[in-house]
Amino acid sequence: MIIIMRPDATERQVNSIVDKLKAHGFGVHLSKGVERTVIGAIGDKSSIELESLQMMPGVSEIVPIRKPYKLVSREFKKEDTIVSLSAEVKVGAGQKILIIAGPCSVEGEKQIIEIAELVKAAGANALRGGAFKPRTSPYAFQGLGETGLKYLAAASKKTDLPIVTEVMDTRDVALVAKYADMLQVGARNMQNFNLLKEVGKTKKPILLKRGPGSTIKDLLMSAEYILSEGNNQVVLCERGIKTFEDSTRNTLDLNAVPVIKKWSHLPVVVDPSHGTGEWDLVPAMAKAAIAAGADGLAIEVHQKPEAALSDGAQSLKPDTFAQLIKELRLVAKAVGREL
Amino acid sequence: MIIIMRPDATERQVNSIVDKLKAHGFGVHLSKGVERTVIGAIGDKSSIELESLQMMPGVSEIVPIRKPYKLVSREFKKEDTIVSLSAEVKVGAGQKILIIAGPCSVEGEKQIIEIAELVKAAGANALRGGAFKPRTSPYAFQGLGETGLKYLAAASKKTDLPIVTEVMDTRDVALVAKYADMLQVGARNMQNFNLLKEVGKTKKPILLKRGPGSTIKDLLMSAEYILSEGNNQVVLCERGIKTFEDSTRNTLDLNAVPVIKKWSHLPVVVDPSHGTGEWDLVPAMAKAAIAAGADGLAIEVHQKPEAALSDGAQSLKPDTFAQLIKELRLVAKAVGREL
Amino acid sequence: MIIIMRPDATERQVNSIVDKLKAHGFGVHLSKGVERTVIGAIGDKSSIELESLQMMPGVSEIVPIRKPYKLVSREFKKEDTIVSLSAEVKVGAGQKILIIAGPCSVEGEKQIIEIAELVKAAGANALRGGAFKPRTSPYAFQGLGETGLKYLAAASKKTDLPIVTEVMDTRDVALVAKYADMLQVGARNMQNFNLLKEVGKTKKPILLKRGPGSTIKDLLMSAEYILSEGNNQVVLCERGIKTFEDSTRNTLDLNAVPVIKKWSHLPVVVDPSHGTGEWDLVPAMAKAAIAAGADGLAIEVHQKPEAALSDGAQSLKPDTFAQLIKELRLVAKAVGREL
Amino acid sequence: MIIIMRPDATERQVNSIVDKLKAHGFGVHLSKGVERTVIGAIGDKSSIELESLQMMPGVSEIVPIRKPYKLVSREFKKEDTIVSLSAEVKVGAGQKILIIAGPCSVEGEKQIIEIAELVKAAGANALRGGAFKPRTSPYAFQGLGETGLKYLAAASKKTDLPIVTEVMDTRDVALVAKYADMLQVGARNMQNFNLLKEVGKTKKPILLKRGPGSTIKDLLMSAEYILSEGNNQVVLCERGIKTFEDSTRNTLDLNAVPVIKKWSHLPVVVDPSHGTGEWDLVPAMAKAAIAAGADGLAIEVHQKPEAALSDGAQSLKPDTFAQLIKELRLVAKAVGREL
Repeated sequence: MIIIMRPDATERQVNSIVDKLKAHGFGVHLSKGVERTVIGAIGDKSSIELESLQMMPGVSEIVPIRKPYKLVSREFKKEDTIVSLSAEVKVGAGQKILIIAGPCSVEGEKQIIEIAELVKAAGANALRGGAFKPRTSPYAFQGLGETGLKYLAAASKKTDLPIVTEVMDTRDVALVAKYADMLQVGARNMQNFNLLKEVGKTKKPILLKRGPGSTIKDLLMSAEYILSEGNNQVVLCERGIKTFEDSTRNTLDLNAVPVIKKWSHLPVVVDPSHGTGEWDLVPAMAKAAIAAGADGLAIEVHQKPEAALSDGAQSLKPDTFAQLIKELRLVAKAVGREL
Repeated sequence: MIIIMRPDATERQVNSIVDKLKAHGFGVHLSKGVERTVIGAIGDKSSIELESLQMMPGVSEIVPIRKPYKLVSREFKKEDTIVSLSAEVKVGAGQKILIIAGPCSVEGEKQIIEIAELVKAAGANALRGGAFKPRTSPYAFQGLGETGLKYLAAASKKTDLPIVTEVMDTRDVALVAKYADMLQVGARNMQNFNLLKEVGKTKKPILLKRGPGSTIKDLLMSAEYILSEGNNQVVLCERGIKTFEDSTRNTLDLNAVPVIKKWSHLPVVVDPSHGTGEWDLVPAMAKAAIAAGADGLAIEVHQKPEAALSDGAQSLKPDTFAQLIKELRLVAKAVGREL
Repeated sequence: MIIIMRPDATERQVNSIVDKLKAHGFGVHLSKGVERTVIGAIGDKSSIELESLQMMPGVSEIVPIRKPYKLVSREFKKEDTIVSLSAEVKVGAGQKILIIAGPCSVEGEKQIIEIAELVKAAGANALRGGAFKPRTSPYAFQGLGETGLKYLAAASKKTDLPIVTEVMDTRDVALVAKYADMLQVGARNMQNFNLLKEVGKTKKPILLKRGPGSTIKDLLMSAEYILSEGNNQVVLCERGIKTFEDSTRNTLDLNAVPVIKKWSHLPVVVDPSHGTGEWDLVPAMAKAAIAAGADGLAIEVHQKPEAALSDGAQSLKPDTFAQLIKELRLVAKAVGREL
Repeated sequence: MIIIMRPDATERQVNSIVDKLKAHGFGVHLSKGVERTVIGAIGDKSSIELESLQMMPGVSEIVPIRKPYKLVSREFKKEDTIVSLSAEVKVGAGQKILIIAGPCSVEGEKQIIEIAELVKAAGANALRGGAFKPRTSPYAFQGLGETGLKYLAAASKKTDLPIVTEVMDTRDVALVAKYADMLQVGARNMQNFNLLKEVGKTKKPILLKRGPGSTIKDLLMSAEYILSEGNNQVVLCERGIKTFEDSTRNTLDLNAVPVIKKWSHLPVVVDPSHGTGEWDLVPAMAKAAIAAGADGLAIEVHQKPEAALSDGAQSLKPDTFAQLIKELRLVAKAVGREL
């Protein structure tokens, strides 16, 4: 940590910072510049509690030097992490591109089995579908709950596709974990820290979606919660952030793909369906995501999007999805990946 | 709901929309313009599920006419809602300005009792303090839990100040409700819908903080969750949003005060401490909030901010707080309020 | 245009809107719903001046139906526009991918000739370089002015690469047009409407960069200024927007590529150098841009980025650039394009 | 400037940074921490050109210590600057609150004289009105040009109110300066650096509006351009930024008021009309601005907003404006100011 003093800071003010740092066990390095004094705090202790130094008289700015996350960082672990959804389906560097496809919500057993078969035939290697649905409106369809989980299990049995489904409540983690192969923590719960701890205690792989108001650093800090509970099977998912641009529902931030790859060893997937909110933008952004280096995609597919109980506007029809997969294979190959 | 067709939409496409609307029980009103046909759907049914009409061929745009929230709206209830924290302390139009003050975290019994006495003497009428703390880092102080709640209760007993404290987990709602006079749902849990439902089932007043990536409409929809469970004792709290401006931790959006007053009957308070992230900006923004029409303020106060276990940089010292209250009284009076 | 009345609007208020619309030559279509009356204004007149209807008593909301731009829209012109930088170098659908490469600033004659030869050898088909530089600080290097333009011309003569360079001042348009093959209007001047009109009066192709605080609609409206002066040789450039995300200098909004393709017939290029601000993110985002459907790229290349007079941190070295071009060829081919 | 090295930086990499700094005339201070080496560059030279150090191998991060602006900073000049619009009308700390009022556009001589008399009677001390109008659409009313300036002059002669009006083009600076008492640089031209230099060369006071995609630092850097040309009569104007919040046209960032007061000696005024885009939010935000410490307000007033040629939806009627001034007097007094 570096403490930059104000140009008018007195010697006494500098000394009182130095004393405080020493009291916390830090080594201190003083650097008197032409205009200002700069104080370096040396040590490997966490300096999180020291942000309140900002309050001390004479201080202009505090510059943290160590990243606030540890277990998720490339500095901590150099090799890419590979996450296993099942014995056959893995995601991460060097693996096949993961394609998680399916409807926004599980609406019925027949529906989910049919769509599972369709997306599998097209080339998907995991099935998504919401049984517990976080909806902006209390009056919107909230999902089928455990019944939905059972339908998902039936679809998985039929197709051998591992299941990715959301858990919204600490009280439901055990229940959802009974049926799901991968637990999804949704964008709106990205900083529901108790939920993060709870899924961290399971042995299940976790799909952690970036909150629409969260920075990449926030996302990594949330992943750190899961890893710090002993579960390192975490996949990060970019799904769009809130910006002033209103021609798309969210602004899909593909910069996040190379940035996360630089800072962390965890796999990254991209959700172009939520990221754009419009089905006809999904193919372009899905291809862009793979070209940017993503390890996988989460794509909404629905037999009859215009009759979907949720998010119809962003869902692909099965044949559009099948066509997209063909195009994605070419892009994946162009960047040295396989799908 | 209005459906705007594309200029090249065929008659058949128009008819298929009309049929679908009729099948859902809507009356239909066709308006053929020079360039486009516009279809009005008439009826008092919720049209939320119809957003997937967007997918139907020929459709250019869907314009919802009814607001997606109901119970929280001024159209539903014209008179301002008054929320009671205790027999004496109420918040809302025509009431005294509510001043919720106290430390970010409860750190000890002595600390919280002392600060409660200080803020009460200065003019606060409610005590805040976190026992369960949502922290970005898993390695940061996470709060004292139930012990913290007990210390808060002791401080309340000593000072008669009602207690406002956060609940983060559906499993803790009953516990926190046992000690708190008002339950706070924090910014990061604003769209934790299960938590909203759970606090909606209590009879406690709720302080609902706006998420940093949430629009005012999102905030009202989250409040709707609470009201739809039968609890209309909800106070909305503006505490800053995420923007590109990096000179403050958040951008406190005071526009939200008159906008919420126009759209909803619920009281609004402003948190300039989180809204700016810097203690020396708090007084200016606190005064601005009252001038804008806020019904109250939530302000962090700490005896020794530079030693606080969390958020020290945004906390006022007790004497700065006492001075601010004096200045706020003048501003409140200037806009016809009392404090 | 559709005018949605408030639920409590009186018949007299509705009538006064209707009268006003008729007075402006619009046909009127009344639709009385269960809760509200909706008024459709029918006609092909521009309705821009009518936004002030918002002020009239009883009005809840105004919904424009026609897009505010015309000449740039797909509805006005279905076929993709092809823009010619020279007899050989063209950009747009079906053309080779345009690669505009070169340093941020022209620093000397030898430097610009050398870099021109290097980028040409690597596969670039146009040369960029700033002679007039918009710098945030008045104390930073402001460019070599006309001398820089002459150096660019020398580099172009040597390599046959057409020149793309910025013009910042209405007074300099004629001068820059004398040397440049394509005039760049920079992001910070995207809404310098007088400059837009002035470059619209030239016959030169224009590279119009999106402002960091501008929506895609704003960008199209600015292009409309140029086309409305009779110059339809306009290429749009996505180069990142301002968001709360601080791990990159800007958030490159690749959604803009398919959105612009849907709404407009103009070619789109992407600038991943400014869009990310960091050279090591450029390759990933360049590939993503091509996969998303961009017609070209603008990339900063500098012999010694660490000694550049501006924007060194986002410039590629020539060999990194050459390697990137090889990878881009594969991605271009995967999406049916050539480079 | 502080250079933070990567944990894996070699001694050679550190040395090459040190050599480069010395070659640029900086003193160097090395600090070897447990994990990383930190290099301090000591000297009073501008370090702007050194941002390209970022490119050098082994460098993790560059932290500038000196602010990039100088003349506008409080550190350079402690006392508040007072700007004079006329012999009687001044703006800045300790002065009366400046109220700049008038229509968005000058529409006719009778109109502008009438409104000037109305706003003066209500309590305004300066007249605004656009003769050159920056409009998003090329088809919207572009202003009356010099004729408009003449009408403004006539209104000023009649009422003695100084005139504030926008200049959009470097070529028009002399013309507008002939008629105006204060030149406005609009939000969209905030980073039109040539225009900034040109108005900097006049002796006129300048009203510099913050761009909707610009940080407070960007605004101060743009002001620095004007001061660096020898003109220190600059007033900064907050008028709202672009954010994801869509219930208001812009998000008026009142935090900017205390932040600018802390960093700079220049006066600050707030424009709640553009800042919100809706007339019925203007009174609340005008009061909030004064309470936050603004030195003045710019408010749009129009006799018949519903017939205005531009921005009608955000204009107050004269009687609403007169009522607002009465309320503002009370708020100003509450914060120790006069109006």
